[in-house]
Amino acid sequence: MLERSAGTVAPALRSAADRLSPAMRAVIGYHLGWLDAEGNPADRSGGKTVRATLALLSAQAAAGSAGDGMPGAVAVELVHTFSLLHDDIMDDDAERHHRPAAWAVFGRARAILAGDAVLALAFRELLSAESAHRVAAVEALADATGRLIDGQAADLDLEGRMDATPQECTDMCAGKTGALLECSASIGALLAGAGDDVVAPLRAFGAHLGLAFQAVDDLLGIWGDPALTGKPVHGDLAQRKTSLPVAIALASSASEAGGLRDLLARPHLDAAGLAAAAGLVEACGGRDGAVVRAREQLALALGALESAPIAAGPRAEMAAVARFVAARDF
Amino acid sequence: MLERSAGTVAPALRSAADRLSPAMRAVIGYHLGWLDAEGNPADRSGGKTVRATLALLSAQAAAGSAGDGMPGAVAVELVHTFSLLHDDIMDDDAERHHRPAAWAVFGRARAILAGDAVLALAFRELLSAESAHRVAAVEALADATGRLIDGQAADLDLEGRMDATPQECTDMCAGKTGALLECSASIGALLAGAGDDVVAPLRAFGAHLGLAFQAVDDLLGIWGDPALTGKPVHGDLAQRKTSLPVAIALASSASEAGGLRDLLARPHLDAAGLAAAAGLVEACGGRDGAVVRAREQLALALGALESAPIAAGPRAEMAAVARFVAARDF
Repeated sequence: MLERSAGTVAPALRSAADRLSPAMRAVIGYHLGWLDAEGNPADRSGGKTVRATLALLSAQAAAGSAGDGMPGAVAVELVHTFSLLHDDIMDDDAERHHRPAAWAVFGRARAILAGDAVLALAFRELLSAESAHRVAAVEALADATGRLIDGQAADLDLEGRMDATPQECTDMCAGKTGALLECSASIGALLAGAGDDVVAPLRAFGAHLGLAFQAVDDLLGIWGDPALTGKPVHGDLAQRKTSLPVAIALASSASEAGGLRDLLARPHLDAAGLAAAAGLVEACGGRDGAVVRAREQLALALGALESAPIAAGPRAEMAAVARFVAARDF
Repeated sequence: MLERSAGTVAPALRSAADRLSPAMRAVIGYHLGWLDAEGNPADRSGGKTVRATLALLSAQAAAGSAGDGMPGAVAVELVHTFSLLHDDIMDDDAERHHRPAAWAVFGRARAILAGDAVLALAFRELLSAESAHRVAAVEALADATGRLIDGQAADLDLEGRMDATPQECTDMCAGKTGALLECSASIGALLAGAGDDVVAPLRAFGAHLGLAFQAVDDLLGIWGDPALTGKPVHGDLAQRKTSLPVAIALASSASEAGGLRDLLARPHLDAAGLAAAAGLVEACGGRDGAVVRAREQLALALGALESAPIAAGPRAEMAAVARFVAARDF
């Protein structure tokens, strides 16, 4: 399903990017994998396009066609692209998917602008949709974008904070990851003219999926295989991210929590120190707790999907996407 | 007029900012002058709000009320705020209006996000407008934002380029400065339900005003008094910006053009070198050419305004704003 929809979304994304100036198209084309750093044609995968896939399926779920959902699919993928371009600059991450991040190739100034350009483009594309319901979709996108940005701001504030609670982490993830998945899982239905009886459970599905997705991401950020994630081992600990496993561990009453706190308070941790910290997070229940969270939220997502009055085929495909997303190795 | 409208726009901007998270509100409040760096209430001017003023006047010009134009006024001012926040980061400008730029206070990551947040907020605010014509206004804003960003990208590409033509400069300014002023001068009319007979000349007025505005800005960027502009003397030359006076000078057949080219090709220029470069730009006709351009474009702007079938009072006030903007000392 993801491969199939990526095949239909990619040309739509490229055609949307044709509205950008050549300088911006070069950055976006590189980031999305159809150009190399010199602007020559390339053929890298443009990512999993989970959000676009959900948008297309949600149109079909609401008895529309995938085509009805396409402007929404393009828009959510563009907002996602905007957030990644700016995230890599903010986190000073010089690599993405085993190659230099866009800012490392084009410089920070052009990468900031390219992010701005795709954000504006997302709204322009959705406003050009022929759907009679495009305004509701634009409103949902604007709301999701605002919450995504607020979540990213909360994420910055949590960095290095030892007193961050698991609840604060969850609230942050609901914005940073949940808001756009919530929008993705319902924007096609909105464009197809669905009512709140369909849209509300699809939104709930996306919101829970976002929390499951982020719990998995947080597990991978500590215990993921660098060969698969493309990120350094124990990377989130090196960056002192108070991700969900860390927050659960620090809030636990386990005797190892004090040692973890001391370790994370050190200005620099070498590889042995990072491995020791990861061991303490696990000993304090942070790993198991995040695994449980991922499973619970996936179950809630699937439950919401089950309750939605939608077509059986798209429902099954949305469930498969959710399981795929939440079942990455950890 | 500008003081009066700033008085009504400022509370609306603050109330829009209430939709942001506290972390983002702190950055925006500082940038717009109602908070200091520590988050305490401050009372600095939030700038001239030229764009908001034009938006309010354009509603009245189209027989609407200033209130009809307010959501547009807030939206264009927020888009302007977004562009300034990101500009200062991209240009590495650590000062704005005689105090530290937002990124110098809050860090680049938070300032990037704050720019993102106000851009998204601009769309959210305009979508919440009660006007029956809000969608046309949102479309105009999205289009202007896209052109503004493309113009900024062109500006980056022009930096240090000795072969940039005056026409390339003009095209860049039409995007960077013209697009949002074009939108500002007509968005109130759109919200008031005006037809193309009113909107088109108001757009033309804003577009020409943008070119006049930018010509003046470019003159101030070289010959402006640092005490008034808050920027270093000859700043644009130090940054190797191929602004309009420089492009006119380099394209001239004056015998001094070669010397100017050689001087600007040097990696570093001291104060004497910058003063010499400014002298050569002037000797090549760059200063006079930009002054003529500013006057021509102001005249075209006022001509477009004159041709619009609008109310006399707002027309006179819009003309006064244009003269004020284009008549800063240079």
